[in-house]
Amino acid sequence: MPLPPTSWQPVSRSVESLIIGADGAARPGLRAVPEEVPVSLVYSSVPFAVMMLTPSDLEDFAYGFSLTEGIVTGAEGIREVEVGQEARGLRLDIRLAPSALTQHLARRRSIAGRTGCGLCGIEELDQMPQAVRPEGAAPAIDMPAIRRALLSLERHQPLNDETRAVHAAAFAGADGTLRAVREDVGRHNALDKLAGALMRGRVRAAEGFVIVTSRCSFELVEKAASIGARTLVAISAPTALALDRARALDMNLVAVARRDTVAVFHGMERVRDGVAG
Amino acid sequence: MPLPPTSWQPVSRSVESLIIGADGAARPGLRAVPEEVPVSLVYSSVPFAVMMLTPSDLEDFAYGFSLTEGIVTGAEGIREVEVGQEARGLRLDIRLAPSALTQHLARRRSIAGRTGCGLCGIEELDQMPQAVRPEGAAPAIDMPAIRRALLSLERHQPLNDETRAVHAAAFAGADGTLRAVREDVGRHNALDKLAGALMRGRVRAAEGFVIVTSRCSFELVEKAASIGARTLVAISAPTALALDRARALDMNLVAVARRDTVAVFHGMERVRDGVAG
Repeated sequence: MPLPPTSWQPVSRSVESLIIGADGAARPGLRAVPEEVPVSLVYSSVPFAVMMLTPSDLEDFAYGFSLTEGIVTGAEGIREVEVGQEARGLRLDIRLAPSALTQHLARRRSIAGRTGCGLCGIEELDQMPQAVRPEGAAPAIDMPAIRRALLSLERHQPLNDETRAVHAAAFAGADGTLRAVREDVGRHNALDKLAGALMRGRVRAAEGFVIVTSRCSFELVEKAASIGARTLVAISAPTALALDRARALDMNLVAVARRDTVAVFHGMERVRDGVAG
Repeated sequence: MPLPPTSWQPVSRSVESLIIGADGAARPGLRAVPEEVPVSLVYSSVPFAVMMLTPSDLEDFAYGFSLTEGIVTGAEGIREVEVGQEARGLRLDIRLAPSALTQHLARRRSIAGRTGCGLCGIEELDQMPQAVRPEGAAPAIDMPAIRRALLSLERHQPLNDETRAVHAAAFAGADGTLRAVREDVGRHNALDKLAGALMRGRVRAAEGFVIVTSRCSFELVEKAASIGARTLVAISAPTALALDRARALDMNLVAVARRDTVAVFHGMERVRDGVAG
């Protein structure tokens, strides 16, 4: 397909548009739009997948994607990440540690085998990496800390400030201080970038909470669990399946209802707040 | 993975939650959340893919997915769709017309071959179904009609009214009258359901415009083009790649900036409006 030459810039500025107001008055205006480029992930020279993503924090993405896809179990599984340019996209060359590479290639062969033998699609769901319920109790849900983080996040989304078209995934410490924010046109990508940033910074996700500015489908719960998070705050209500998974994983699940109201879907008995707790 | 027993209901009502207001006051409340279930698509007994979707308008989804994935070129390629229940999800049995089946199986074999021989991921992008630029000029962008449709759409999203967590894709006639609205937790699914509804109703998408209540990545432009739409209205600005594709396909591309302001990204010279035109 005729993809345009790609750049490493996450935003295209100076895109011409015609702005039309409520009164019908039209005026030309320049807008910034997010880039979305095909990125090929190559593990120790073996191509694995092509993902469409906003070209920022690519090394973080390489680490996070590798973790949430179950290719590595920690940062030590990756020796080096190199970002390269292809004719029509970008390329992430990820050099795995020997033990991670052996496991990855063995699993890859078994996946290829399944594709070939035409097993029922439903059965393939069983092969998805699935998080396990962590040991120990989930932490308290500290409402003032969550409010603080949500307010702070509004001021820390530079790509979205420019484009109004990208998602963010953020990590805040237990006191609500934002520790990392990553952005992408794709909500899964934003969370993978955040996962990678935490891995590389040796931050334990269990010691704070994760915020996603997106709908909360079950994969986001799985992904948050796979990086060790015990509390997930999402901008919308979860799907029924996301809630089932949060209960099974005992993950605190909070949805922002309006700017000043939230709904807690799992972990209600752990809410700590001036009034409720 | 331990998926729950599925139902055919698109919404789970009476989900317990704890609502916490700005003052910290907490009160229990029942919320409705959208369902998200694995749906296996089986073409003439051959499993093709498993998609996670909200279980509503499943026959529409079967038709639309088959079209936008390039498995059929029109409604006549499908003989019958049967919805069935699996142990842990739903199943769409899609019986193809003989010529469509022959083509589908031939293509499927070639895809399996590629997976096996490990070609570079970037090359797989070339194999994605890609819409072709339609003949003839795109229609005018009728701002009052678009405003009318956007206002009307706010009152025609029953699943979102209940859950505040699902996307909609809608089709409006040239005068802005809503003709079809479909909803899903996934934005691609909502558009596929709409595509199927138009196919089954023998509605020509070129004679009106498509609205999506979601971000506008390049796949949505491709998908809208593959169903014959010449005008796409999205809730956010497009990505740079989505805009490139809209230009290549000469598809009018309109983004809603605020409730009363829109930005036209492609087709600016075709805006018809009390003031601008």
